[in-house]
Amino acid sequence: MKSILVVGSIALDTIETPQGGVADAPGGSAIYFSAAASFFAGVNLVGIAGEDFPTERLDWLRRRGVDLEGFQVIAGGRSFRWHGRYHSDPNQRDTLLTELNVFQDFNPQLPEAYRDADLVFLANIDPELQLQVLEQVNRPQLVILDTMNFWIEGKPEALRQVLKKTDLLIVNDSEVRQLTGEINLITGARRLTGMGPRVLIVKKGEHGAMMLTESGLCCTPAFPLEHVCDPTGAGDTFAGGFTGWLAQAASLDEATLRRALVYAATLASFTVEGFSVQRLESLTRAEIEQRVTDFHQLTRLD
Amino acid sequence: MKSILVVGSIALDTIETPQGGVADAPGGSAIYFSAAASFFAGVNLVGIAGEDFPTERLDWLRRRGVDLEGFQVIAGGRSFRWHGRYHSDPNQRDTLLTELNVFQDFNPQLPEAYRDADLVFLANIDPELQLQVLEQVNRPQLVILDTMNFWIEGKPEALRQVLKKTDLLIVNDSEVRQLTGEINLITGARRLTGMGPRVLIVKKGEHGAMMLTESGLCCTPAFPLEHVCDPTGAGDTFAGGFTGWLAQAASLDEATLRRALVYAATLASFTVEGFSVQRLESLTRAEIEQRVTDFHQLTRLD
Repeated sequence: MKSILVVGSIALDTIETPQGGVADAPGGSAIYFSAAASFFAGVNLVGIAGEDFPTERLDWLRRRGVDLEGFQVIAGGRSFRWHGRYHSDPNQRDTLLTELNVFQDFNPQLPEAYRDADLVFLANIDPELQLQVLEQVNRPQLVILDTMNFWIEGKPEALRQVLKKTDLLIVNDSEVRQLTGEINLITGARRLTGMGPRVLIVKKGEHGAMMLTESGLCCTPAFPLEHVCDPTGAGDTFAGGFTGWLAQAASLDEATLRRALVYAATLASFTVEGFSVQRLESLTRAEIEQRVTDFHQLTRLD
Repeated sequence: MKSILVVGSIALDTIETPQGGVADAPGGSAIYFSAAASFFAGVNLVGIAGEDFPTERLDWLRRRGVDLEGFQVIAGGRSFRWHGRYHSDPNQRDTLLTELNVFQDFNPQLPEAYRDADLVFLANIDPELQLQVLEQVNRPQLVILDTMNFWIEGKPEALRQVLKKTDLLIVNDSEVRQLTGEINLITGARRLTGMGPRVLIVKKGEHGAMMLTESGLCCTPAFPLEHVCDPTGAGDTFAGGFTGWLAQAASLDEATLRRALVYAATLASFTVEGFSVQRLESLTRAEIEQRVTDFHQLTRLD
């Protein structure tokens, strides 16, 4: 079993949709990622929150083997908050508020026990902090990176440095175009592998994902859902399902990476069925395996 | 071997792209469909053109077993013309000109030999004409229908009538939403199967296709291409590859429908590699089979 380290955001999310909503619910990339990965392996989490964060609402993560020694609570501080509103088409959303609060001074320090992580997931944070994390780990087998338009525009040089140290990059289709200036996704993906990562996964939301490895391309659909409740966190859950599956696998060969894609898409499909992390909290391994079976049935082409 | 009938448009297309273009090149749904289907089975084509149509430029279709007895040339008439311009993102196009010409008076009459067709493809034409075609055929095994926003808005009642007589509907994602008012594609697809068709195929362009049958859902990607030259005709080629594969298959069971989807996506991927029907004209069965093998490799998930 490989050990997993995730460094990312911890948030209190307020989410509105035409079907309802939640206020100040646990969220952030590190939480979604850990919740998904914890079905398969232990996870060491590094993140920061304010005193207002209801840490008892992470007890279920602890019970699932998520280590929170690296979860820093700032006395008197206020947690990162995000407030978004989704429209009847869940691909459309407005950000009504982003308050960085304590996240603005995030200075990730790894507990000693976290430094030997086999699989490192650098969630979407400042690439300078991502570099700082990499300086604190000893020889991980795989460094997996996420980023976003904000850093691509704002910190291109630091991002280039992180990319050189990255084995596997997970981005969405618009980020591929932004990072490379290429309209064609495959051409863009190939160019990105020249910037460091050996493997590239392009997330396309409801249209699935594409993976480019040394062996070639692989395409998966998203699991088709009739009722999408709240898409928040789907991408980080995808990364968590993917990394979790790799952690429990004997090798990191092509077949394993492909199977991991199925688990990634499957976990993400559960996340969007509930608000915040609600569905992940109630989810069981048996439900995951059932949907993985359905996923294979869905993609069987003969 | 089942016999195929297609009734659709014959056009002279002028196409501009950032990479170049063609003027007055053979096009139209019936041509693209036949070119694709002819790799697998004989095709009987019903369409209309003007005297300006260079019929010698269809000789390659004749050699491939496309019967043109139903191809009507109107003396003194002018062919249907379409002029489009694609942008550097090939999903964006402007229609600069549409001249219906002789197509406006299209009154499809089936030669006697065409009436026993096993598989009937009603390409995107006026649903009143589609009904008129169905009155002329004897007991086809499968009626496959295409349509577009123009008829969904303009002739909803006639379209409802055709849908009742349709076994398999091939539409794109925006048409599902328009036909049903549903934002969710799967819910929309299920509602459409309540309107007549037993099987529904939703084309999503570069994002692939989804098929809904009595057994459930199936999703395929599009074949990923680095160089898209001209997307014109991709949808009709998809339908042609699909129908052609069914024609040569022993049954119309679920596995056959799924394999047909792969041939559909494969044929469409060749069409967009050249202007007009150029790539389909030079294409060989061996190239198709090679890409089908690549397609299976691309979608293998373990």
